[in-house]
Amino acid sequence: MAGLVTVALDAMGGDHAPQATVQGAVLALRDDPDLAVLLVGDEARLRSELGRHGHAERLEVVHASEVVAMDEAPARAVRARPDNSMSVGMRLVRAGRAAAFATAGNTGAALASALFELGRIRGIRRPALATVMPAADGFFLILDIGANADCRAADLVQFGLMGRVYAERVLGIAEPRVALISNGEEQGKGNELVKEATAAFLRSNLRFVGNVEGKDLPLRLADVVVTDGFTGNVLIKTAEGVAYLIVELLRRELRGSWRGRVGALLARPALRRVFRQLDYAEFGGAPLLGVDGVVVVGHGRSDARAIAGMLRAAKRAAQQDLVVQIAEGLVELEKKLGSNA
Amino acid sequence: MAGLVTVALDAMGGDHAPQATVQGAVLALRDDPDLAVLLVGDEARLRSELGRHGHAERLEVVHASEVVAMDEAPARAVRARPDNSMSVGMRLVRAGRAAAFATAGNTGAALASALFELGRIRGIRRPALATVMPAADGFFLILDIGANADCRAADLVQFGLMGRVYAERVLGIAEPRVALISNGEEQGKGNELVKEATAAFLRSNLRFVGNVEGKDLPLRLADVVVTDGFTGNVLIKTAEGVAYLIVELLRRELRGSWRGRVGALLARPALRRVFRQLDYAEFGGAPLLGVDGVVVVGHGRSDARAIAGMLRAAKRAAQQDLVVQIAEGLVELEKKLGSNA
Repeated sequence: MAGLVTVALDAMGGDHAPQATVQGAVLALRDDPDLAVLLVGDEARLRSELGRHGHAERLEVVHASEVVAMDEAPARAVRARPDNSMSVGMRLVRAGRAAAFATAGNTGAALASALFELGRIRGIRRPALATVMPAADGFFLILDIGANADCRAADLVQFGLMGRVYAERVLGIAEPRVALISNGEEQGKGNELVKEATAAFLRSNLRFVGNVEGKDLPLRLADVVVTDGFTGNVLIKTAEGVAYLIVELLRRELRGSWRGRVGALLARPALRRVFRQLDYAEFGGAPLLGVDGVVVVGHGRSDARAIAGMLRAAKRAAQQDLVVQIAEGLVELEKKLGSNA
Repeated sequence: MAGLVTVALDAMGGDHAPQATVQGAVLALRDDPDLAVLLVGDEARLRSELGRHGHAERLEVVHASEVVAMDEAPARAVRARPDNSMSVGMRLVRAGRAAAFATAGNTGAALASALFELGRIRGIRRPALATVMPAADGFFLILDIGANADCRAADLVQFGLMGRVYAERVLGIAEPRVALISNGEEQGKGNELVKEATAAFLRSNLRFVGNVEGKDLPLRLADVVVTDGFTGNVLIKTAEGVAYLIVELLRRELRGSWRGRVGALLARPALRRVFRQLDYAEFGGAPLLGVDGVVVVGHGRSDARAIAGMLRAAKRAAQQDLVVQIAEGLVELEKKLGSNA
């Protein structure tokens, strides 16, 4: 059992908790003999939920008496009720009892409790939330998708570093190319923030390949795409909205005629493969980079399959010593930026 | 011929000019007996192009000796070569020879030449580029999609007013609902700009319905969606990118098996209807609101059908007295904001 990695799971977080979280943990444990899970939440409810799944090895329940709701003001809730499942899970990481924490709960609360219980990696200005997006061939990492609504250029460069480390270590991309999202790929385009960040990236030791536009994201011109948390959040939610719109329009049109219905029936396996490629759940949640511990945040809608994916991603990140890698990379980055200033 | 509306068309603007522009003008004129077109550009090339289409009524060529290329630095090009087709077209509007100007050329150059030749409507801080986006049922207007990379809260409120006027007058939507794009619909979400703008919208006389997220855009919770030009540009280009990605993945998967190929063949009419609904070309380009004249900017990729759609949109906007409506609306808006300050 030398390779055993323990992940703490917020069993109360997400729209379908605790059913989906418990089932997801059971699924992930069944597939991976090197994974152990600490289920954090209301012990009685979790025991009763576990009863439906028979015996599960490498699984332990850690009681937390409180919950942060999906629609609560995060920072306040986390401080008012320190025994909530997120804060308890973060403390398991801080104490070394778990190598990572995963939650499909309130993103703001995850950020607040991570900052409060784990703190930032030394030198990191702001933590960032990252996620993987699909491209026509393969995928890329994008950050920040919502941890910081207002950012400075220096934040964006650090996001570039943290994204590079994650892409290299966890996603297995060699020498990841880093780009900034802009309103045009030409130099001189961009808002003030992007222009200032572009200059800083050019002075950095990152493999900066310039600015990309939203329409070129599927071409995967970069492996790590950097933006402020407001733009990033609007971007991924718009992508979600457009995908929904297309599926919805297709469904209606195909149902509207016998030709469409027969065609859809025949095309179903192909359609299903496409929508699986677009599905965030396959990619296992969003790592919160820059806090002093491995934290992964999943979509509130996560089902058991998505929870299992999130646990796998959390385990991979923990195995790769992400925090140390970011801390070391930051020292190099600051040295380079300092010498060029 | 009392109802005749003359639109000046930048015959040299766009990736497929002058073939697509001339053909688009001929198409639009054939469909609409109340439209007249001034083709602005290199006279010899336009005459030769027109030769391929036979006689066209209500069409006149206005010579412009220069062109702004798609990839040129806009403001500089427009000033350096005042006889470019865009500046000439804008001057036709200023002189009253045309009721509107339409171009599929360099967006930045359209903005620069409009500001230079037409100027802003009195009291308007910044012009904004608007476009129509499809929703599951119907469509909505979004602005700014790229005229201003950096905006202030007061700009956004004016965008809301201009969007309302356009939605009401040109799109025929009664009492349009106005919303801000944000990274969450709850109050208190948003970056500093959105928070400040939310407060100003709440004090305004616009029908403000709050903040919407990108994922909810297809639900059409608002008729006019307001954002800064950086976010708006990233948003519409991301939507374009995601639509392209889905089409590309579908194409590959459907081609990969006989079931898929037969299914696609049967479903083709339905698929085609869906992608037509998503197609910007149907909607006829982006109005540049806030300049002292009617200006419509089309996608660089515009084909003849898109050019014809853009001419129709320009004519509709001209008929609705857009400039006067915005100017009058602005007086009311400022009065209301002033009394609440």
